[in-house]
Amino acid sequence: MSILVVGSVALDSVKTPFGEKSDILGGSATYFSYSASFFMPPGKINLVAVVGNDFPEEHLELLKSKKINLKGLQILEGQTFRWSGCYEGDMNEAKTLTTCLNVFETFKPEIPDSYRNTEYVFLANIDPDLQMDVLSQIKKPKLVAADSMNLWIKIKKQSFIKLLSKIDILVINDGEARIFTEQSSLIKAGKIILDRGPKYIVIKKGEHGSLLFSKKGVFSAPAYPLEKISDPTGAGDTFAGGFFGYLAKLNKTPNESNLRKAIIYGSVMASFNVEDFSLERMKRLTYKEIRNRYKKFKEITSF
Amino acid sequence: MSILVVGSVALDSVKTPFGEKSDILGGSATYFSYSASFFMPPGKINLVAVVGNDFPEEHLELLKSKKINLKGLQILEGQTFRWSGCYEGDMNEAKTLTTCLNVFETFKPEIPDSYRNTEYVFLANIDPDLQMDVLSQIKKPKLVAADSMNLWIKIKKQSFIKLLSKIDILVINDGEARIFTEQSSLIKAGKIILDRGPKYIVIKKGEHGSLLFSKKGVFSAPAYPLEKISDPTGAGDTFAGGFFGYLAKLNKTPNESNLRKAIIYGSVMASFNVEDFSLERMKRLTYKEIRNRYKKFKEITSF
Repeated sequence: MSILVVGSVALDSVKTPFGEKSDILGGSATYFSYSASFFMPPGKINLVAVVGNDFPEEHLELLKSKKINLKGLQILEGQTFRWSGCYEGDMNEAKTLTTCLNVFETFKPEIPDSYRNTEYVFLANIDPDLQMDVLSQIKKPKLVAADSMNLWIKIKKQSFIKLLSKIDILVINDGEARIFTEQSSLIKAGKIILDRGPKYIVIKKGEHGSLLFSKKGVFSAPAYPLEKISDPTGAGDTFAGGFFGYLAKLNKTPNESNLRKAIIYGSVMASFNVEDFSLERMKRLTYKEIRNRYKKFKEITSF
Repeated sequence: MSILVVGSVALDSVKTPFGEKSDILGGSATYFSYSASFFMPPGKINLVAVVGNDFPEEHLELLKSKKINLKGLQILEGQTFRWSGCYEGDMNEAKTLTTCLNVFETFKPEIPDSYRNTEYVFLANIDPDLQMDVLSQIKKPKLVAADSMNLWIKIKKQSFIKLLSKIDILVINDGEARIFTEQSSLIKAGKIILDRGPKYIVIKKGEHGSLLFSKKGVFSAPAYPLEKISDPTGAGDTFAGGFFGYLAKLNKTPNESNLRKAIIYGSVMASFNVEDFSLERMKRLTYKEIRNRYKKFKEITSF
């Protein structure tokens, strides 16, 4: 089995109560693929994204070191997508300072031939029309999941609704679920989105954990309790990478039990990621640590 | 075993997206005792509070119907404590419109002789000096828990700190824990408060669940997922009543496992309470429903 991820690779500038970093590696496809790589055999993650020719070679080397396929990473004349933001208070939400799309503005995902047989497809947050276009280029996907963002839900609502009928799993955050459904109750929101087509809905609530919705009901998981969150950037994408990586590794139609475990692996990955800036914590992470924190997660939530 | 609760009995006026009610039964001691009564044998809950002579007889009858002892309920010349507030958006926090303390302003809890042997003591949110005074009137309490609020943590911090060294369990909400410890991380906050004396800290996070801290570590529980929250008023006190009622029913020194179960019973009670205004839902509630929701809680959180 292999995973295709289409999304952003970016250079972030982030300020949190614990420090300030400029032009560090970020982007949804970056966090997702790095996180998923802990669950997959080498060479089984196919990344599609775009960067400018200013993108540091060392970041490419980092992704290559995790055996992530970069054939689908376009390197275009121009500047890489840059985002800057800061976190304050409970650090649950970033305040965006600047967004410079640069080469990402006209990103048109091209799926290399060698990627077209990928079975597990994760459409990170890009224009839903592009997400649909990517999907049409994949021959026979076994499992398709997608993320989105407020912007698309607002300005491309019909395309987003169309996308929902084509995917198996929607992974979004609480604010997005509320905006799309115009419901304050996330439980109602999850059920409404289920009716739009996906078999499963995952709603990420940041430090408050996550919810999984299926026809069988709701699964509710807290976040892993952490004393210190250095930088929440990429937590959602890292969660998605762990979640989807675990499901792809199983290589079978997931059931309720698998999906719940996948949610916890996603939470575990996110909990490591926020312990340092950029992918610094994941760079030092071992699979043994992931297993141990998964066990610890069980301990701290069972009654 | 018996429970003593000292707190408020009030008349609330509440506005939520689901309705508006005036002068309905409320108050911390009311919600706490009614909730705890589901776990206790008849006549084993001793309430201490104060109301004015305008307090409707039907509310007294309601508490008596649950065999709550009202010997310690002072009925004074004057008006009952009145609070009005509204909820909007995610309904996690009340916006207080008016607070008229009335007879509650000069409340001096007097513990009837017949209450002085109570083993399980719950000090709901009142001035920490009064909480200490109550405690000194109890002969040999087995387990003492207390709640508080921002006001006391700000204006009577030293008294509150003194109280912490005298109680077994502190039950407060996330905002209060953050204000007291000046920490944004609740995990850090919980550990800091543990160092002040209580053996256990319960931090209530409203719709986001709750945390239990002990020397052994952290327990994290989500809230019971609800589609509709009609009125969150009293959720925290109802939680405390279920939590403490379950522990008192056990009638032994609680261990980590008991406390975790107590947290879930507290969450279950709170989840019922918010389904309607005032104590309306609890009035219709059966112990069988409580048991079933507890089981359902296990189902929706296990992995």
